[in-house]
Amino acid sequence: MNAEIINKRVRATRREMAKMGVSFLIVTRPANVTYTTGFLGGDSWAVITKGRVYLVTDSRYTEQAQKECVSCKIVERTDTLAGAVAKIAGKRKSAGIPAVEKTTSLALYEQLKKALKTRLKAVSDIIENIRSEKDSSELAAIKTAAAISAKALEETLPYIKPGITESELAGMLDFQIRKLGAKIGFETIVAFGPNASRPHHQPGKRKLKKPDTVLIDFGAAYKSYHSDLTRCFCIGKPTDFFKRVFDVVEQAQAAAISLIKDGADMIEVDVAARKVIAENNLPVYGHGTGHGIGLEIHENPFLKPDGKGTLKAGQILTVEPGIYIPGKLGVRIEDDVLVTETGHKIITSKCPHRPYRIG
Amino acid sequence: MNAEIINKRVRATRREMAKMGVSFLIVTRPANVTYTTGFLGGDSWAVITKGRVYLVTDSRYTEQAQKECVSCKIVERTDTLAGAVAKIAGKRKSAGIPAVEKTTSLALYEQLKKALKTRLKAVSDIIENIRSEKDSSELAAIKTAAAISAKALEETLPYIKPGITESELAGMLDFQIRKLGAKIGFETIVAFGPNASRPHHQPGKRKLKKPDTVLIDFGAAYKSYHSDLTRCFCIGKPTDFFKRVFDVVEQAQAAAISLIKDGADMIEVDVAARKVIAENNLPVYGHGTGHGIGLEIHENPFLKPDGKGTLKAGQILTVEPGIYIPGKLGVRIEDDVLVTETGHKIITSKCPHRPYRIG
Repeated sequence: MNAEIINKRVRATRREMAKMGVSFLIVTRPANVTYTTGFLGGDSWAVITKGRVYLVTDSRYTEQAQKECVSCKIVERTDTLAGAVAKIAGKRKSAGIPAVEKTTSLALYEQLKKALKTRLKAVSDIIENIRSEKDSSELAAIKTAAAISAKALEETLPYIKPGITESELAGMLDFQIRKLGAKIGFETIVAFGPNASRPHHQPGKRKLKKPDTVLIDFGAAYKSYHSDLTRCFCIGKPTDFFKRVFDVVEQAQAAAISLIKDGADMIEVDVAARKVIAENNLPVYGHGTGHGIGLEIHENPFLKPDGKGTLKAGQILTVEPGIYIPGKLGVRIEDDVLVTETGHKIITSKCPHRPYRIG
Repeated sequence: MNAEIINKRVRATRREMAKMGVSFLIVTRPANVTYTTGFLGGDSWAVITKGRVYLVTDSRYTEQAQKECVSCKIVERTDTLAGAVAKIAGKRKSAGIPAVEKTTSLALYEQLKKALKTRLKAVSDIIENIRSEKDSSELAAIKTAAAISAKALEETLPYIKPGITESELAGMLDFQIRKLGAKIGFETIVAFGPNASRPHHQPGKRKLKKPDTVLIDFGAAYKSYHSDLTRCFCIGKPTDFFKRVFDVVEQAQAAAISLIKDGADMIEVDVAARKVIAENNLPVYGHGTGHGIGLEIHENPFLKPDGKGTLKAGQILTVEPGIYIPGKLGVRIEDDVLVTETGHKIITSKCPHRPYRIG
């Protein structure tokens, strides 16, 4: 990872630390460790002080860390993570209470307190908030993840035929993503027919029929950055009701996207999509309208009816309204949208919503 | 999930709770929620009291919970998880300090304390320890996951040909697992040639050559229960050195497995494998010799040089020694082993170690 980019992120983190009076931050959340060090391995923590960033790792990862973490002091621990952090703290000259991220478990917090032999603050959302506005390297990675997703779906379309199971179709789509050199962003959802009315349906043995409907919610991870898309298809002629539902979901999504720009009120964006569905006398979805994507598949900002705040240029978020009628159907359309100073840009536009009829 | 099985698990949990003076346990770790309720969805907690088990979920999962959780009182929350737990606590007649699992994050612990307006204990390993000894339904699920893994690898063998990339081969194996109706147990590791010297290698664009070597570490999840296997192959004639390393790893694994039975000292099992490698003047691996598998891919018990305790009948664990020589090769052989009263049973025996030569 480019040293300049990492240094910029660390400077932003230190500014927030200073506001909170923190001069020694123990970073345990994996995505935050990656963000501030460039490290893509596991089981490692970062420590950010006024003058340094330490990556605390073990012998399995030392070689990888030396390649990936150009701006860090790499500490190969022989002790526990907490013990290694205490050693770093012991060498510090400046005083001040150390702080740890609130996403840390109680068990690790206890270990840290014991090892540090001092008070320990818990802080939240320092790095998460910085992460929500993407830099150019992050935007490029998410664009590539989106392009790979679009291509993988295109390669998978010929397999969407009567007889294939949900699980097999999910596996084929995942295979295409891997073949294109990315990783699976999250557990692919494939739901046939009425199964799509459950937003969190797990692909099973249900076979595709004709006529039938298909909902696919999937994404790729490229250089650890995620895309997240949902597309719906009909096998054979769609019913008039399905067509109507599909149109309304697409209009709802367009209404929300149209409001996206730097400074937009997040509740207004969320409500815009729900309003279109309600006005069409169709049931309004129970989930959020969208969420940020990046090193994690769900991250700040979150579009929800009670989600205060405004959007900021550089954020990338999903917009994914849906209509769910138990026992009957489910339609969701999801795209990834970049917030710009003057409006927005749809990153997943290479993957068309239509034609949604196959076969 | 069978009510009798769940009730037995809950009774075991209550016995441990009683020993610790806990009469109200808040279960937040997803695998522990599944274990004590049967629920397979997400974002939900269990509360175990003397007389009841509550599943605290939201509207996305209510229908699923009603099917899966036959012995629970299902609470559809409208508030936060912490708020819903506080309402349950408020209705209790008996006093006593509530307890929460130590794997809970600091942020959620704070929310709970605020909502409950009381002291809150933190406890560890109550359900994890019970989970380590599998019941018959769990053994059956892990056996099926192992059988699916073996079959998936067999179906994938024809694709192990010069030109395929690590990422594509990982994708093909994952596809076969999905096609057989299971889920991917964890991110499949495929490492060609010297890449296999990194135990945590991430499959990339490296293409298979001839001659070459392949290491595959993979597993399926069936009904949420995991298998975990590693196999190694040669494309073309193996070198004498590879043959020697392979033989030593196999002997090391056999030495460890031969000691496995109810009451066996875990350190002795771990050391047995390392000793064979050291005696052959080859480098001893830095990772553990094995770990339990079940609802999680890594769970109690852990075989490691400092891992005190004895094995117990009903535990299922991996045995996975390896030899890693940076820049040259990596060989690991991993099987899943059931501990019995009188010895052990290898669950992954349908997937042969040899012949390891392909093409």
